[in-house]
Amino acid sequence: MSNTDTSFIPDLPLGGPLAHYRKRANFDWKRLRLIFEKEQGLRIKYKVWRRLENDPLFAHPSRTLPMDEQKRLCAMQVNRMKHLDLVPKEIESLSFSAKTQYLMYINEALACYSPSLSVKIALGVGLFNNAIRAMGTEKHQKYIEAAWNREVITCLAITELSHGSNTKRIRTTATYDPSTQEFIINTPDFEAAKCWVGNLGKMATVAMTFANLYTADGENHGLHGFLIPIRDPKTLLSYPGVLVGDIGEKCGLNGIDNGFVVFSNYRIPRDNLLNRTSDVTPEGVYESVFDEPGKVLGAALESFSAGRIGIMQESANTLCSAAVIAVRYAAVRKQFGPERQGEESAILEYQLHQYRIFPFLAAACVQKIAVQELTQTYLEIIARSQADSNGFDVLTQNAAEIHALISASKPRITWSARDAIQEAREACGGHGYLRAAKLGQMRTDHDPLCTYEGDNNVLGQQASNWLLRQWSAKELESPIGSVKFLERRQHLLSLKYDQLVQQTPIKTWQFAITCYEWLLCHLMSHTTAHIEGQLAAGANKFDARNNSQVAGAKELSLAYAEYFALSRYAEHVRQLKVEAPYARVLRLVYDVYAMWLLEQHMTTFYVGGFAVGQSFAGSVRELLLASCLQMKEFAVSIADAIAPPDFALNSVIARSDGRLYENLQNEFMTNEGAFQRPSWWRDVIIPQPAEKSKL
Amino acid sequence: MSNTDTSFIPDLPLGGPLAHYRKRANFDWKRLRLIFEKEQGLRIKYKVWRRLENDPLFAHPSRTLPMDEQKRLCAMQVNRMKHLDLVPKEIESLSFSAKTQYLMYINEALACYSPSLSVKIALGVGLFNNAIRAMGTEKHQKYIEAAWNREVITCLAITELSHGSNTKRIRTTATYDPSTQEFIINTPDFEAAKCWVGNLGKMATVAMTFANLYTADGENHGLHGFLIPIRDPKTLLSYPGVLVGDIGEKCGLNGIDNGFVVFSNYRIPRDNLLNRTSDVTPEGVYESVFDEPGKVLGAALESFSAGRIGIMQESANTLCSAAVIAVRYAAVRKQFGPERQGEESAILEYQLHQYRIFPFLAAACVQKIAVQELTQTYLEIIARSQADSNGFDVLTQNAAEIHALISASKPRITWSARDAIQEAREACGGHGYLRAAKLGQMRTDHDPLCTYEGDNNVLGQQASNWLLRQWSAKELESPIGSVKFLERRQHLLSLKYDQLVQQTPIKTWQFAITCYEWLLCHLMSHTTAHIEGQLAAGANKFDARNNSQVAGAKELSLAYAEYFALSRYAEHVRQLKVEAPYARVLRLVYDVYAMWLLEQHMTTFYVGGFAVGQSFAGSVRELLLASCLQMKEFAVSIADAIAPPDFALNSVIARSDGRLYENLQNEFMTNEGAFQRPSWWRDVIIPQPAEKSKL
Repeated sequence: MSNTDTSFIPDLPLGGPLAHYRKRANFDWKRLRLIFEKEQGLRIKYKVWRRLENDPLFAHPSRTLPMDEQKRLCAMQVNRMKHLDLVPKEIESLSFSAKTQYLMYINEALACYSPSLSVKIALGVGLFNNAIRAMGTEKHQKYIEAAWNREVITCLAITELSHGSNTKRIRTTATYDPSTQEFIINTPDFEAAKCWVGNLGKMATVAMTFANLYTADGENHGLHGFLIPIRDPKTLLSYPGVLVGDIGEKCGLNGIDNGFVVFSNYRIPRDNLLNRTSDVTPEGVYESVFDEPGKVLGAALESFSAGRIGIMQESANTLCSAAVIAVRYAAVRKQFGPERQGEESAILEYQLHQYRIFPFLAAACVQKIAVQELTQTYLEIIARSQADSNGFDVLTQNAAEIHALISASKPRITWSARDAIQEAREACGGHGYLRAAKLGQMRTDHDPLCTYEGDNNVLGQQASNWLLRQWSAKELESPIGSVKFLERRQHLLSLKYDQLVQQTPIKTWQFAITCYEWLLCHLMSHTTAHIEGQLAAGANKFDARNNSQVAGAKELSLAYAEYFALSRYAEHVRQLKVEAPYARVLRLVYDVYAMWLLEQHMTTFYVGGFAVGQSFAGSVRELLLASCLQMKEFAVSIADAIAPPDFALNSVIARSDGRLYENLQNEFMTNEGAFQRPSWWRDVIIPQPAEKSKL
Repeated sequence: MSNTDTSFIPDLPLGGPLAHYRKRANFDWKRLRLIFEKEQGLRIKYKVWRRLENDPLFAHPSRTLPMDEQKRLCAMQVNRMKHLDLVPKEIESLSFSAKTQYLMYINEALACYSPSLSVKIALGVGLFNNAIRAMGTEKHQKYIEAAWNREVITCLAITELSHGSNTKRIRTTATYDPSTQEFIINTPDFEAAKCWVGNLGKMATVAMTFANLYTADGENHGLHGFLIPIRDPKTLLSYPGVLVGDIGEKCGLNGIDNGFVVFSNYRIPRDNLLNRTSDVTPEGVYESVFDEPGKVLGAALESFSAGRIGIMQESANTLCSAAVIAVRYAAVRKQFGPERQGEESAILEYQLHQYRIFPFLAAACVQKIAVQELTQTYLEIIARSQADSNGFDVLTQNAAEIHALISASKPRITWSARDAIQEAREACGGHGYLRAAKLGQMRTDHDPLCTYEGDNNVLGQQASNWLLRQWSAKELESPIGSVKFLERRQHLLSLKYDQLVQQTPIKTWQFAITCYEWLLCHLMSHTTAHIEGQLAAGANKFDARNNSQVAGAKELSLAYAEYFALSRYAEHVRQLKVEAPYARVLRLVYDVYAMWLLEQHMTTFYVGGFAVGQSFAGSVRELLLASCLQMKEFAVSIADAIAPPDFALNSVIARSDGRLYENLQNEFMTNEGAFQRPSWWRDVIIPQPAEKSKL
C-alpha cells in the first residue's frame, strides 16, 4: 500500500490554524482517503468537482435564489451536463454493473455539490431509464436515448395526493379503447392527482405513470406503467386533457419542480403501455407475458433498489460533510480554558464536545465503507443474474435478503446523517446558523431522504418482517450471509456479558459484533413472542404486527443495519494490509462507532438480561471516551480524509485552510448589500421630533 | 369550573374529517384549553391574533420572500405595533410583574405568528430596556421611552466574532479621555468585532455595547455597558468611526438584520456609560457605586432571565404547534388497513405512530403548565424583592435556584421542541415537507433557540454545577423547593423499583416523581464521585468538571428540568377541581409524558441498580402504550385545546377544518405561477431534431 498513487488528490493548504492538529497525525491523510474510497471512484469524483468548479454556471450562488431562479439554474445545469463530458464514450462497452458503478460515482459527486441537481438528473435520466428497462420492451428503447439526449424530459408519476406508501391504492385509470387502439387516462378526483412528482411541475414532457389498466369489459387488471406525454417538447406547453402544475415551494430541494397532474379523458397510444410482463392486444385482450423471468426480476430489483442505494451513498457523504464541518470548526474555535487569564482551549479538547461529534465522524468512516460493501454485493448479484442462464434462481435467493438489508440500512444512514447535521449545527454555535456555513441547506435538502423512495418507518418494517420470517423459518435463507449467525442462536441467546468479555475482550473486533448477535437474536425472539401473544389473544395478523413495532421490531431493523455495517467494516479492514498507524486509526473509528451504538441499545441489553450491574455500561462508556480522547489527536486528519474539496463542501466555517475568522470576515464584508443602507429606509424610520436632542 | 366563560374562544368548524375523532371526546376542548392556559393570557393572545389577522400588513406571504423583503416587512410590522394598540394605557399602572406577564403574553402570541417579528421587538424594546433598567441610571431613562416610541432603534452588542459563550473574553475597549470627557471606543481587530447582533445589520441607531473600560492610566476595569450611537436616526446612515454591516443570510429568522460592527477611535460622551454600579468621574477616576444592592441584583436577574423565560414560553408553544400539526394530519391521513380491499386506517390508529407523536403532544401539555409555573415563581421572586426593603436577601437566596431551574429547563424545552418539529415533519411524510405545511419554517426559526441566550450545553453545565453544590453543601439552599427531596437522599438512594412499586403503584402521580428523585440522587452522587475521582487522580478542577459531563452531569441537568416540570404539573393539576373527564385527560397526558421520559433514562435506572430484570422497563412501556391507545380517542380534541387559531398556525396540512386534501388542492392550484410555463423555457429545451417522431 505504501506505493499507492495519491498524486491525483489535490493538496491541502499548508500552515494555518488547523496545522496544530494536522501535525499530530502520524499518517498521510491522502492514503487514508484511499482506504475509505476506491481509487476509481475518487478519480471520477475529483474530475466531476474540477469540471464543475471551472464552469461559471456551477459557481455557488451567494444567497438563496428565488424559487423560480433556482429551478432555472438547476435546469440549465442539467442541460450543461453533456458539455462537461463527465461520462466517457467507453462506458457503453462496460458491463452493466461497471457502468452503474461509474454513474453512481458521478451521482455522488453531483449530490455533494447540489442535491437538487443530482436528484433532477436521477429523475430525468437514471430512474426513468431504469423503469423503462424494467417494464418496457424493444419499442420503448428509443425513450432511453431520448432521455439521455434531453429530447424528452422525464419523470416518474407514482404517488397520488392521498396515497404515497400504500401504492396499491393508486386510483388513476387507463382504460383501453379498442376502437382507436388507445388508452384513456383519467384521474377520478383530485385525491388521485399524481402529486409530488419531481420534474413534472415545470418541465416534464413525458411521465412514466402508474395507473390501473382497465379493459373495455370493465375489468381492472391492476397497476401498470404507461408513458404519458405531458407537454410539447418544442414549447413546454401542456397538451389538452392534461392539467399540470407545480406544487409550490418546499422546505428545500427547490431546484426541483415537483408537480401534480390531473388527466381528463386523455388519450395515449396503445404502444405507450410498458408491456414487458403483460400487454393488451390491439383488439383489447389482456395478456400476461412471462418471458425471461430472471431478467424481469433483475430489472425490477435494479429499478427499485438503485434509488435507495443512491440515497445511502449520498447520505454517507452528507454524514462525512457534517462531521468535517463540526471537526474543523471545533479544532479552530477556542472558548474558555483552565486558567482565567490563560490561553483558551479549542472546543475539540472538551470531552463533552468529543462525545457529541466524534461518533458522527466515526459513523461517517464506517458507513463510507459499509455502503460500498452493500453496493458491491448488490451489483454482484445483478451481474451474476445477468451472466447466469439460471439468473432467476440466483436472484430470488438473494433478492429478499438484499431488499431487507437495503430497507434496514436506508433508514439507519439517513437518520444518522440527519442527526449529524443537527448536532454539527449546534456544535458550531451561532456561526453554524449562518447560511454560508452550509448546515442549514444540508438539513433541508437531506430531510426528505428520510421519506422518499420508501418512508423510513415503513421500510424498517419490511426489514423486520424479513428478519422475523428468518427467525421462524425451518431453513435459513441467507445467501448473502447477513443472518448466518442465527445458526448459533441457542448459544447466542444464552450469552451474558460477564462470560463473553472473558473470552472476547471488549477491545477485540469481535466483541461488539457478538453483542449485536445476542441483541438481534433477543429482539427477534422477543418480537416473535410478542406477535404470537397478540395472535393468541385474538388479534388479526395486521394488528399483531403493528402492535409489535414498538415492542421490538423497530429496534430490530436498525440494529440489523448497524450489525451489517460494523461486521462488513471489520471484515473489510481486517483484509486490508495496512501499516500500523492506519490500522490504529481504522480501529479507533470502529471502537468509537461501535461503543456509541452499543450505548443506544443499552436498555435492551440490561432489560433482556445480557448485562447486570455497572460493568457492561461502564466498560463501553470507558472505551468510548478513551477512544474519543485518542481520536482527538487525529480527528482533523481523519476529517481531511473524508472531506469533499472546499468547492463542494462550500462551508465558510470549515474551509481546509482553517482560517475561520478571516473567512467569516470576508463573508460578512462581501455579502450582497452588506454595507448598504436599505432601499426602504424611509419606510421604517420614525420622523424625529425637531426639538429632541440627539440620542 | 363548569361555569367558566369560554365564549371568547372562537369556535372550530363543524363537521369535516376531524369530526370523527372530535365526537369521541367527552369533554369541551375550550374548557380544557382554559386549564392549559390562563384566561387572561388567552384573551390577550386571541386579541393579538385577531388584530394581526385583520391587518393586511400581517397577511402571510405565500412564498419565502427575498431576504431584503423579509427585513423590510418585519421592520414595517414592528413599526405598526403601535397602531395595533396591543398594549393598553393602563399597563403603566400595573405592578412590575403584572406588566411583565402582560408583555410576555403579547410576545407569545407574536412569536407564534412570526418569530422574526417577536425577536425584533424583544431586541428593539424589551431586552434593551431591561438592560437600561439593570445597568443605567436616571440620565438613561429617556432611552427607554425613546425605544418604545421607535425614536431610537436599539440592539444589544455583546457577542464578538471569536467570543460568544465566554463573554469574559470580550475585547472591545472603551478608554476614557478626561480632556474631552469622552470614551474612545475601539475594536482591536476583526475577531473582536461585535457580531450576530440582532437589529444591527440594517437599522439600529444605538447599540448597548459591552466593552472593557480603561481609565487614562491604562488600567482595565472590566466589562461595562455603553450606549453607542451607530446611525443617524434621521437618515439611517452610520457615523464616521463606525463600520457597520449586515452579516448576511441565515438559515432562518431572516426578518432580523443581524449585524457586525467595528469601532475605530469612535468617541462617545461620558454620560453614555451605564453607570449604575460604577462610574468614572469627569476627571477620570473610576468609582464603584453600590447603592440599593437588592434592586441592582433584581434588575440584573430580570435582565438575564427574562429572555430565557421568553424562549421557554415560545418553545412550549412551538411544541404545541408541532404536535397539533402531527395529530391533525394523522387523524385525516389514511394509509393501509387490515383488509386488502377494505377501508384504510387513519395513521393515528397505528401504535408506532402514536408512540412517535403522542409523547410530544403530552410534552406540550405538561410544559405549557410547567413553564407557566416557572414564570410565576420567577415573577413572584422579583415582586417580593421589590416590595421587601430586605429585597437583597430574598433575591440572593432565590437567584441561584431560579437560575439553575432556568438553565436546566431552557435546554430541555428547546430540545423537545426541536425533536417534536422533526418527528412531526417525518410523521407527515412528503406533505410535511411542503413549505405551506409550516414545519420547515418552524424548524429553521426554532433552531437558534438552542444556541442563543445561552448555549444549551453551556447552560446545562451551570444547572448541574448548582445541583452538585447542593449535593455537597452542608445546608441545603432550596427556597423554591426544587431539590427539597435531597433531605431524604439516604432513603431515596436505597430505593429499588420492586419495593417502590409495592407502596407506590405505577399508576399513581407519585410513582414517576419518586423514580426521578432516585435518579437525581443517583446522578448527583455518581457525578460527584466521578469528579472527586478525577481530582484525586491529579486533574485540576476545570478538567475534573469537564470530564464528568458525559459521566452524569449532562443527564443530571435534563433530569432536573423534567422532574421540575412533572412535579409542578402534578401539583398544579391536583389542586384543580375539575370534573372526571378533564381529570382523566390531564392524567393521561401525565402518564404518557412521564413514562416516555422514564424510558429515556432507562439505562441509568438499570445500570444504577434501581431496577433489574424486565419488570420495570416492561411496566413503563406497557403503561405508555396503553395510555397512547387511550389518548388516541382524545388526541384531536387535546390538540384543539392547545392549537393556535388557523391564522397563527398557518399550516395547510393541519387546518382546524381537517379538509387536508381540499386545502392542499387549493394550495397547489393557487401558488404563484403554478400553471405558468416558466419564463425561461427557451433556455432549457433542447431543439428537437426535425425528423424525429413525437415522443
